[in-house]
Amino acid sequence: MAKQKINVGMVGYAFMGKAHSVGYRDAAWAFPDIKAAPVMKELCGRNESAVKEAAELFGWERYSTDYRQLALAKDIDLVDIGTGNDTHKEIALAAAAAGKHIFCEKPLAMNVAEAKEMVAAVEKAGVMHMVNFNYRVVPAIALAKKMIDEGMVGKPYHFRAVYLQDWIMDPEFPLVWRLKKDKAGSGSHGDLNAHIIDLARYLCGEFDSVCGLLKTFIDKRPIVQAQAGGLAAAQGSKEMGQVTVDDAALFLAKFANGAVGTFEATRFAGGGKNAMRFELNGSTGSIRFNLERLNELEYLSMTDKPEYQGWKNIMVTDGSQPYAGAWWPGGHIIGWQHTFVHQVYNMMNGIADNICPTPNFVDGLKCQEVLEAVANSSDTEKWVKVS
Amino acid sequence: MAKQKINVGMVGYAFMGKAHSVGYRDAAWAFPDIKAAPVMKELCGRNESAVKEAAELFGWERYSTDYRQLALAKDIDLVDIGTGNDTHKEIALAAAAAGKHIFCEKPLAMNVAEAKEMVAAVEKAGVMHMVNFNYRVVPAIALAKKMIDEGMVGKPYHFRAVYLQDWIMDPEFPLVWRLKKDKAGSGSHGDLNAHIIDLARYLCGEFDSVCGLLKTFIDKRPIVQAQAGGLAAAQGSKEMGQVTVDDAALFLAKFANGAVGTFEATRFAGGGKNAMRFELNGSTGSIRFNLERLNELEYLSMTDKPEYQGWKNIMVTDGSQPYAGAWWPGGHIIGWQHTFVHQVYNMMNGIADNICPTPNFVDGLKCQEVLEAVANSSDTEKWVKVS
Amino acid sequence: MAKQKINVGMVGYAFMGKAHSVGYRDAAWAFPDIKAAPVMKELCGRNESAVKEAAELFGWERYSTDYRQLALAKDIDLVDIGTGNDTHKEIALAAAAAGKHIFCEKPLAMNVAEAKEMVAAVEKAGVMHMVNFNYRVVPAIALAKKMIDEGMVGKPYHFRAVYLQDWIMDPEFPLVWRLKKDKAGSGSHGDLNAHIIDLARYLCGEFDSVCGLLKTFIDKRPIVQAQAGGLAAAQGSKEMGQVTVDDAALFLAKFANGAVGTFEATRFAGGGKNAMRFELNGSTGSIRFNLERLNELEYLSMTDKPEYQGWKNIMVTDGSQPYAGAWWPGGHIIGWQHTFVHQVYNMMNGIADNICPTPNFVDGLKCQEVLEAVANSSDTEKWVKVS
Amino acid sequence: MAKQKINVGMVGYAFMGKAHSVGYRDAAWAFPDIKAAPVMKELCGRNESAVKEAAELFGWERYSTDYRQLALAKDIDLVDIGTGNDTHKEIALAAAAAGKHIFCEKPLAMNVAEAKEMVAAVEKAGVMHMVNFNYRVVPAIALAKKMIDEGMVGKPYHFRAVYLQDWIMDPEFPLVWRLKKDKAGSGSHGDLNAHIIDLARYLCGEFDSVCGLLKTFIDKRPIVQAQAGGLAAAQGSKEMGQVTVDDAALFLAKFANGAVGTFEATRFAGGGKNAMRFELNGSTGSIRFNLERLNELEYLSMTDKPEYQGWKNIMVTDGSQPYAGAWWPGGHIIGWQHTFVHQVYNMMNGIADNICPTPNFVDGLKCQEVLEAVANSSDTEKWVKVS
Repeated sequence: MAKQKINVGMVGYAFMGKAHSVGYRDAAWAFPDIKAAPVMKELCGRNESAVKEAAELFGWERYSTDYRQLALAKDIDLVDIGTGNDTHKEIALAAAAAGKHIFCEKPLAMNVAEAKEMVAAVEKAGVMHMVNFNYRVVPAIALAKKMIDEGMVGKPYHFRAVYLQDWIMDPEFPLVWRLKKDKAGSGSHGDLNAHIIDLARYLCGEFDSVCGLLKTFIDKRPIVQAQAGGLAAAQGSKEMGQVTVDDAALFLAKFANGAVGTFEATRFAGGGKNAMRFELNGSTGSIRFNLERLNELEYLSMTDKPEYQGWKNIMVTDGSQPYAGAWWPGGHIIGWQHTFVHQVYNMMNGIADNICPTPNFVDGLKCQEVLEAVANSSDTEKWVKVS
Repeated sequence: MAKQKINVGMVGYAFMGKAHSVGYRDAAWAFPDIKAAPVMKELCGRNESAVKEAAELFGWERYSTDYRQLALAKDIDLVDIGTGNDTHKEIALAAAAAGKHIFCEKPLAMNVAEAKEMVAAVEKAGVMHMVNFNYRVVPAIALAKKMIDEGMVGKPYHFRAVYLQDWIMDPEFPLVWRLKKDKAGSGSHGDLNAHIIDLARYLCGEFDSVCGLLKTFIDKRPIVQAQAGGLAAAQGSKEMGQVTVDDAALFLAKFANGAVGTFEATRFAGGGKNAMRFELNGSTGSIRFNLERLNELEYLSMTDKPEYQGWKNIMVTDGSQPYAGAWWPGGHIIGWQHTFVHQVYNMMNGIADNICPTPNFVDGLKCQEVLEAVANSSDTEKWVKVS
Repeated sequence: MAKQKINVGMVGYAFMGKAHSVGYRDAAWAFPDIKAAPVMKELCGRNESAVKEAAELFGWERYSTDYRQLALAKDIDLVDIGTGNDTHKEIALAAAAAGKHIFCEKPLAMNVAEAKEMVAAVEKAGVMHMVNFNYRVVPAIALAKKMIDEGMVGKPYHFRAVYLQDWIMDPEFPLVWRLKKDKAGSGSHGDLNAHIIDLARYLCGEFDSVCGLLKTFIDKRPIVQAQAGGLAAAQGSKEMGQVTVDDAALFLAKFANGAVGTFEATRFAGGGKNAMRFELNGSTGSIRFNLERLNELEYLSMTDKPEYQGWKNIMVTDGSQPYAGAWWPGGHIIGWQHTFVHQVYNMMNGIADNICPTPNFVDGLKCQEVLEAVANSSDTEKWVKVS
Repeated sequence: MAKQKINVGMVGYAFMGKAHSVGYRDAAWAFPDIKAAPVMKELCGRNESAVKEAAELFGWERYSTDYRQLALAKDIDLVDIGTGNDTHKEIALAAAAAGKHIFCEKPLAMNVAEAKEMVAAVEKAGVMHMVNFNYRVVPAIALAKKMIDEGMVGKPYHFRAVYLQDWIMDPEFPLVWRLKKDKAGSGSHGDLNAHIIDLARYLCGEFDSVCGLLKTFIDKRPIVQAQAGGLAAAQGSKEMGQVTVDDAALFLAKFANGAVGTFEATRFAGGGKNAMRFELNGSTGSIRFNLERLNELEYLSMTDKPEYQGWKNIMVTDGSQPYAGAWWPGGHIIGWQHTFVHQVYNMMNGIADNICPTPNFVDGLKCQEVLEAVANSSDTEKWVKVS
């Protein structure tokens, strides 16, 4: 096969580095019709021994420790940014300046100003860019989008979404980077609300204005002693430090099309592991989804006869459904990791076709605008227009 | 309103007596279109003080202690039999001989021979008769029947049903009458399988042959000291006695129409409280039901496009659905007791129209034939034809 | 039995009149330990022929057409108010002035001012009073309260509740009284949010401040031609009129104890029939409930070992659980109507003991304060303190 | 890392070939503690162009077309058999004769006689052997096993399992190899019941005797014109041929420990995609599982207080649970394919430790004995002892 090869250089090798690696490794295998094949060329990270080990384990050809050199490397076509939020901008600007395509983790940036700079940079460079709102490519959500586009939901009235987790409820859980504003930008807000804001834009429409509330339930935590491995492995010391991000972020929204919405992200909902759930109600139908059962989509048609109306649980594993045909026969479910493969598939096709895929940096910026409006609203205790 | 009055005399005042009383009390109120109105005339039981108290509590006009006199009473139109299984026949024969209509608890009799005698008696007497397979009038099941009749399930392939309870799993639970063959006829088999056999006949078709297994897990239990109140209140002594009925009864079935079935009744399924569940698969659709969520019916249409196929959970509380219009607005669920009201509604209409309602003694007999064939199969370890 | 009799005079005979009648009819029968027995003495309504028919059907001894006379009737002990919201106050004031106990439908009043007048009146009169937030006595919710009181939820962090209905989504649905501000006070807000506000107070704590949004999706509807029977039977004419209440009402809340909440009431959520659902997350556990499956309560304990943690679906039909023992053996579910019986049980016991039951007019007032704060917030687009 | 390498030669490249490839590719990456690393050395199949293409796509180093040569190849350590059932024996015997370890798809063989020959061969050769009952290594099922071993279920009373599919319900679906007895041995029985029989042995205990029923609903189907690609791609001609296997296979079982069971496999249950579900009831607890939601395990403890008893839905994605720690943070679900990785992990460790892993050929033989007893019972219409 004389398929185009896209050499990938990835920065970051922790949780997201592992997940992105799956995407690059499996995309060409799962989708024989992919238009360009990713090559796992270089993995980059600050800790040399750790990045070396990760590169071997995940199957990257080489490793390095300076993202600036990676961005400049002649044989790298695409820079993947899977690092902490505070470094997205600088890496993206370096990559864009070097004319590399960019695949960036969400949230795109620390704030709107950064995001605007990043959008300007990729547009000036004329490169392909994508932001990893990977839930758009959950087959069930892609099917939901198709159904909405076919009119099966009608005029939207309500969008309600929650993203519930519980991993920091223990007061002894230490002060990891995700709980520091200078590293993470925000807490549950940028981490979790970013996803449901993007899905709201994708499935319901653009935001008009928001009113929100950011809340920190536990504001002092043990300072991390030494953090090797993931967040879970972090050990707290006896010294306490200040939590500077939100534990939970709730907001109401008015959409440009007249719909209204409720949004809630939290790390304090016991029993929520990765419980991103949303429901959309429109004039002709409703749609429901739960990420912890991501192979299923629930749909209710208002056009059914009243006596036969009900929520239909559609298993989204059939070859006729988006992305599902790449995998297994109907009923053989896929997992969370498969979304990364779908994202890479779209990114590769975008590069091959020279058509910027979605969701891209513009979507990342629009999400950032909503995030920032909510944060402003929380400070001012008023409704805030989304710019 | 010059509506016909039907004077009811009921024998039995325990669990079933209470439930039947609800039926008589609520039928005319819930269904203003009922064709004849039941009057709660006389409650009959062996223990005078207990029956007196029950009559007052449940709202019966008078009480008595001899069912033979009740059967002969001039002002009684309908005899209701809610007693232990070993007395159904004698009471029914007395009532039929006196020309009374009869509403009898299930299972109809202790065995096929008794059931045949009872059918002969009511047919000879020309009275209306009904057997209380009350699950036929759960709105969701009545809706299922309607859907089947409309072809929404097609040619049946599979019927599978379980009836799971767990109330006698504790080895200290005493030897109540339901665990004695001479009183109850059988254990889980006649008590629980009777229901799912009737539903199989109603929704899937007549039985051809069966192969089954009756099992007693705990065969000795404390003898009851004194049993006042319901089964739950029974106290065991230190003396042990023999359990003479099955704790569980499982069987396979071949239906006359070519479908096949699995059936299981048990009182040893931890977590099953009143978990009667069935599923019917046909050539064009499938239906599922769970008695612990009796306001819901699940349906899957094989005629939906594959990408939109799924189990639809229909809430059966809408005025357009069977029986549901008698109660509350959609979404306001009803309970188990409401089935007794629906049964009385059908019984009253049958009497007024002089058309024997269903399920009646003939259904009771057919159910008994299946029960007996299964028991024979358990003894002979072979398939047995249902006569 | 020389049990005290409480003569009830009820105003209103539509949907709520039917439901309250069930309460009075069944309370003494279901709860033999009730301390005073209600007598269904007089039903009152403006339309004489309709009230006469309802009185016969529901089993009231007599009927009348003037609530002022009912309030003054010597043989009436308790006045039940099941009328439209705009008449609650006047009837309650008349009843209190006459020294009658009062059982009033929710929302208590049209606004805070009315509610305050009503509280003052019953306190001055020294009568027993109750407001029908009937969901407090759903067995599952009463069990939730018990679990919370036992510390099984811990310090509350999140309360989120929705009350989803869909009965007016059709633009042809006519302009019934519930859609007119002068009759109903508000739309989904007072009708539905009133319930979840009360439950939040009951289960989570008092409100500190709120920020909300009232929304009308369809603001013109066919004027009602002639409305006989319930809302469903209303027929629209060709002339259009203005909808003056909210179709949906959403708000965020801060509780006095530091918890935060989201609330949403709507009549535009396709598939929601009576879908009141809430979830409470605390430091040691979480609780979830869905009114369409009211016999179930979900609980998650944070004290379980991580490997065995999960949402436990407790069937609340066991004799050991609140109110459930009055009905049937475990697994035999009850319906929505049963909550009215439990309310009457509590009201009767309150009268007999001369201890004002809960929820009472004070709870009704506090709910009204939250409702009004939300409405103010919707107007001012700011957070509003709950007085 | 000087980790031992195990060179794998795999026969078969269709559905199972793809799935096994995932196992070999991901095992060392997902489990850094694996004791030996598989090398995807050679893929073997009869159609040269197809096997060449598959080898490239799945990442095998080389390909071949004669399994006999593969078995003899010096550099092959492990032979993987993912072919049709009728060739398992001959390949296994060749591999064992050559001293190769063997990983074989289920069912192990066409019948008991073949399976015995295979067990004898591997035991004589002293090689490691495994049969791919991959559902044992679903994290939820492995957790169930752990809970059972810890006494959380107690003495088993009931095991009930169904395996429901619907992919051949269309009468136009052609006569693929899976519907021919000479190729497949049996239909749903060996394909689906094999899995639930193995799980019953794993979780409940050994079989004593069985009574079953094999059923073919549609006995003539269009002969396949040309079958390229998977089963789904098969095209039927106008000529009809005889279906020689069962469409459904149902049986009852008595276990050696006194438990009883029901089993049902079918390809005619509309809505069942890969709906393998089982429930185990024991004296102290119950367990439920559904393969279409394989990240969840339901558990009910009989030792909970009655008021708090209920089915607990445990999400099995936490690092503390079997196999789950290899993947993602809690709540990030895995898919069906991950079971193949777990199997390879166990196989590699077995080889490295020279301890034969389970489930192995002995388990495959025992499963075959149950399958054959059921088939005999279906012929004789009697209970049959499992040898």
